[in-house]
Amino acid sequence: MRYTAEVVISLKPVVNDPQGLTVRAGLHQLGFSEVSEVRVGKHISMEVDGDSESSVRQRVADMCERLLRNPVIEDYRIEIRADGA
Amino acid sequence: MRYTAEVVISLKPVVNDPQGLTVRAGLHQLGFSEVSEVRVGKHISMEVDGDSESSVRQRVADMCERLLRNPVIEDYRIEIRADGA
Repeated sequence: MRYTAEVVISLKPVVNDPQGLTVRAGLHQLGFSEVSEVRVGKHISMEVDGDSESSVRQRVADMCERLLRNPVIEDYRIEIRADGA
Repeated sequence: MRYTAEVVISLKPVVNDPQGLTVRAGLHQLGFSEVSEVRVGKHISMEVDGDSESSVRQRVADMCERLLRNPVIEDYRIEIRADGA
């Protein structure tokens, strides 16, 4: 069965995010003063074949641990959904 | 009231994604052969003050239109949730 996996790679809360600060400054300059904190991360969308949602989730977590995220500065979050569901 | 807005900026489906191809090749090389398509985008998380979820959603859509996404090659998707909810 085919699943869509969405992975969000975000900086750990203790890590500075200059890109987020720049985006916030840009938004303030455009008049969006209601924005108080901005963090910029990566979003990875994948098509993955597997037997069950839980096995796919485990495999995607392995991918994050081995390639996708930098464990020193980044956290990750995984969402899985069955295609066509 | 304070809301958390999550914005996913992704490349339009017709746009080539060399970064995604590179990630997919890396995953295949590590033995994750069940991965068939990878697309890499940006994830922006923001704290936004506003009166209601719908008004915050409209403001965040304005931010996307005016600053965050490149309309030529990118789509965006917005999720809003009330903080502490």
